[in-house]
Amino acid sequence: MLGLLSATDPRWVQVALGDLDAVLLDHFHCELKAASSALALAARYPSDPRRVQALTELAREELTHVQQASEVLASRGLVPGPPGEDSYARELRRVARTAPSEHLLDRLLLGSVIEARSCERLLLLSQAVPDEALRRWYGALYASEARHHRVFAALAEDAAGAGRARERLGELCALEAEVLAGLPVLPRIH
Amino acid sequence: MLGLLSATDPRWVQVALGDLDAVLLDHFHCELKAASSALALAARYPSDPRRVQALTELAREELTHVQQASEVLASRGLVPGPPGEDSYARELRRVARTAPSEHLLDRLLLGSVIEARSCERLLLLSQAVPDEALRRWYGALYASEARHHRVFAALAEDAAGAGRARERLGELCALEAEVLAGLPVLPRIH
Repeated sequence: MLGLLSATDPRWVQVALGDLDAVLLDHFHCELKAASSALALAARYPSDPRRVQALTELAREELTHVQQASEVLASRGLVPGPPGEDSYARELRRVARTAPSEHLLDRLLLGSVIEARSCERLLLLSQAVPDEALRRWYGALYASEARHHRVFAALAEDAAGAGRARERLGELCALEAEVLAGLPVLPRIH
Repeated sequence: MLGLLSATDPRWVQVALGDLDAVLLDHFHCELKAASSALALAARYPSDPRRVQALTELAREELTHVQQASEVLASRGLVPGPPGEDSYARELRRVARTAPSEHLLDRLLLGSVIEARSCERLLLLSQAVPDEALRRWYGALYASEARHHRVFAALAEDAAGAGRARERLGELCALEAEVLAGLPVLPRIH
């Protein structure tokens, strides 16, 4: 799905449904981190106005999701704390090469891969969660993350050319599958 | 103006008009930093859904300004680089107390003070810049920053009570005036 080289462990949906509150609390911070990360990228690589436009628009959408997640948490009497450890994101950030031109490409492609993984899991939740309103919400978010996946992929192609971007995307998808396989199955989005 | 304890050095407007390109490049990053800073605060102190709502909505507005600033830069053939040193923000961040309850209050109040200073300077630009479209843009931004100043002040009062918030605001405004007086007059927003 969306270029991912592994499917989520089939046990994950049951683990997630077993502690949906934990998933929702994690999800709130995932959306905030997605917005912050897009802004950090726009600040560090602001030379292309189309990239700035795309990244800030994506962040604006993620912030709408943060607001929705915050409302869902409040409606369930859940009070989020500061973000916890995020092993998935930390491991993936390590994979990004550091030379400036490679760093931008890798960060954009990792954005694309992380959105694809979120998308896969939100789709699973949209099919499995008992509550109908939540199912609909996950369905809407799934569609939005699929768009964001394509935005990042297109920005990567703009930045480095389609051939180089696609080749590196394959490598990063393989690394993402490895990282995910090394992590425990937890009630989190990642 | 808006609680500030000093007026901007009268030389600043002439310095700014003397290198409006530099002001615009700085402004682009100021708006991005304002958005990022609001998100960092929402992530660190997410327990109150009204605060999350207010900070993310404020960030969404700042991102609209980033997009507008990016268009203005492009229309003038200006290409922004990564953000430079920001002595004003760095000095003010040092002023924030570190104990959790005090830190939140100080960060919110500093947000309020920084928005007030932006507001003062954008008003000056909206009155002095020769280009009519830019003057109108600065006028719209000035009104928006004034609203953001009030949003931060109200969040500070919610978090710590009106009495404590107002007393600390007075102290921080005095410190801000000192910090500003110690900095050179440059073609920047701060």
